[in-house]
Amino acid sequence: MRKLREAIRATGNPSVVGLDPTDALLPAVLLRDAGSLEDKAEAYYAFNCAIIDAVADIVPAVKPQIAMYEALGPAGVAVYARTNAYAQAQGLYVLGDIKRGDIGSTAAAYAAHLSVDVWHEDAVTVNPYLGSDGITPFVDAAEEYDKDIFVLAKTSNPSSSELQDLPVSDGGMTLAEHVGGLIEQWGGASSSSSSSSSTGYSRVGAVVGATHPEAGAQLRALMPHTFFLVPGYGAQGGTAAGLAGFFDSAGSGALINSSRGIIGAWRARPEAFDSLSTSAALEMVGTAAREAAVAMREDITTALRERTKESA
Amino acid sequence: MRKLREAIRATGNPSVVGLDPTDALLPAVLLRDAGSLEDKAEAYYAFNCAIIDAVADIVPAVKPQIAMYEALGPAGVAVYARTNAYAQAQGLYVLGDIKRGDIGSTAAAYAAHLSVDVWHEDAVTVNPYLGSDGITPFVDAAEEYDKDIFVLAKTSNPSSSELQDLPVSDGGMTLAEHVGGLIEQWGGASSSSSSSSSTGYSRVGAVVGATHPEAGAQLRALMPHTFFLVPGYGAQGGTAAGLAGFFDSAGSGALINSSRGIIGAWRARPEAFDSLSTSAALEMVGTAAREAAVAMREDITTALRERTKESA
Repeated sequence: MRKLREAIRATGNPSVVGLDPTDALLPAVLLRDAGSLEDKAEAYYAFNCAIIDAVADIVPAVKPQIAMYEALGPAGVAVYARTNAYAQAQGLYVLGDIKRGDIGSTAAAYAAHLSVDVWHEDAVTVNPYLGSDGITPFVDAAEEYDKDIFVLAKTSNPSSSELQDLPVSDGGMTLAEHVGGLIEQWGGASSSSSSSSSTGYSRVGAVVGATHPEAGAQLRALMPHTFFLVPGYGAQGGTAAGLAGFFDSAGSGALINSSRGIIGAWRARPEAFDSLSTSAALEMVGTAAREAAVAMREDITTALRERTKESA
Repeated sequence: MRKLREAIRATGNPSVVGLDPTDALLPAVLLRDAGSLEDKAEAYYAFNCAIIDAVADIVPAVKPQIAMYEALGPAGVAVYARTNAYAQAQGLYVLGDIKRGDIGSTAAAYAAHLSVDVWHEDAVTVNPYLGSDGITPFVDAAEEYDKDIFVLAKTSNPSSSELQDLPVSDGGMTLAEHVGGLIEQWGGASSSSSSSSSTGYSRVGAVVGATHPEAGAQLRALMPHTFFLVPGYGAQGGTAAGLAGFFDSAGSGALINSSRGIIGAWRARPEAFDSLSTSAALEMVGTAAREAAVAMREDITTALRERTKESA
C-alpha cells in the first residue's frame, strides 16, 4: 500500500474516483455517432480521459469497474486497459475492480493482472469465496511486482447480509468477520516485505462498504494491518459522518470510492449540454467531476477532523 | 437448461471439455513464433479450434475458462470470444467460466455476457458472495435470452472448506448448503418459464466439485431442481465412481468437466511432436483429445450404469 498511501498523502485526499461509465452517465452528444460497440468503447475512453485530466492532481487514485467495459465485449475490455494506462501516465494509482476469484491454478492465471504489463493496474479486487488457494496467487504476484489486492469482506449492497452476516462461530462472529481474520493472515504472509511493513498496512486490503458503518468500525478494530477500500459513499447512501470509523486513529487506513457522484456530476445541469460540441461536453464533464471531487474531499476530511476533535 | 440437456441426450455424454489453454498445455511448435501476446492468443485460438473440431460430435459442451485468456490481456479476451463463437458454430453449448459477481448495478453490466451477442456464451458461472442482488441480474438476463447460469456452491479446490464448509446454522448446515438453498430459490424465480420448468431443472445451476463426493450427494438431495456443473474430475482427483451421486436417479442433472485431461492428452506422447509442423501438431492434439473424451464418456456412463444396477 506504499504507493497508494504516498498518493493519499500528496493529495491530502483519501478518496478514489470510480470510472464506471454507462450510456446513461455519458452526455448524449458523446454517443450520438456511436453505431457499434467499438464506437461506444471509444466514447467511454474519451469520457474517462476527460475525468482523469480533470481530477488527476486532486485525487490519489481511480477505480475502473471492469464490468462496465466487459458489457461492450472485447472492444470494451481493451478500453479498460487503455484507460488504466492513461491514468497511470497521469500519476494515478489504478485500482482495477475486477473481483476475480477461482481455484489455485486459475487464480494464478488471473494474477497476470498484476504480473503482466498489459492491464496497467496497481491493485485489483478479489473474491474470497474459494478460500486461500484462490487468494495466494494474487498475494504472491502482488509481492513480486510491488502491487496490492483488496479482498471482499463486507460489500456495500443491500443483500450482502445474506451470506456475509451469517454467524459462523459459537461466538457469533459473522462470515465477513471470519473473512476479515483470513485477510489479516493473508496480509501477514506478505508483511515480511519491507515496502509493506514499513507502512503498517499489508499489501492485502479489504473491501468494506460505506453503507455499513457499524460493521466497518468493528472490522477496523479486528483488522489493524488491513487497508480498507470503501465503496458505497454518495449514490449508494454512505455518508461522511458514517465513514470516520473506517479510518484508524491517525486518519489513515481507508480509501473512499465514489463513482456516479463524480463522473455523473455533470447531470446536475443536463440542459447545459443541449447544443455543445463533443469537446465542449467533455470539458463540462471534467469541470463538474472536479467540483464534485473537491466537495467530496472536503466532506471526508471535515468528518475526519471532527472525529479527531471529539477524541481529543 | 433445455439446450444443454438436449445436447447431452444427443451425444449420450454428460461431460464438458474445459478449454483452458496455457503455454504448458500447447505443443512447443505452436508457440515457436509467438513473439507477442497477440501471437500467443492466436496460437491458443488455433489450439482451441483443433480441440473443438475433434470433439464437437461426441461432447455436448465446452467450458472456456476466461482467466487463461485474460492472462494474455485484451488480445486474449478477444480470442476467448472468438473461441466461443467457433464452438457455437460447431453446435456446442458454450459455458463461459467467468465466475463474475458484484453489486446489483454492476452485476447488471456483467449480465451483458448473456444479453449482448458479443461473448457468445450459452451460460456463465457466477459467484454468490454478494447475495441475491448480485445474482438476480444474471437470472433476469438468462430468462430473457434463454440462457443459463451456474452459481458456485462447493468448489473443487482444497481450500474450499475455509468458507464453504463453515456451519452457518444451529443445525450445522454449511455455507455451501445455505448457498444451495438460495440457488434453489433463485431458480424458482425463473422456473415460471415453460422452457425451464419443462425440463425439471431451472435455469440456475450450481458448481459442485467432483473432489467432494459426499458433499455432492448431500447437495443433490437438497437441490432437486438444480443442474450441477462438476469440475475437478481427472487432473484434480475426482473419479467416476465418486460422481454417480451428483446425478439424479434417472442419470441426469450433472455435467462433468475435464480440462487438462482432454486438452493436454497429447502430452502422453510428447516425443511424437518433435519434428511436426504446426498443422500436424494440431491434428495430433485433436486426435489425443478425442480419444481422451471418448474414454471419459465411457468412464462416466459406465459408473452411471453400475449405479443404476446397484439400485435395481
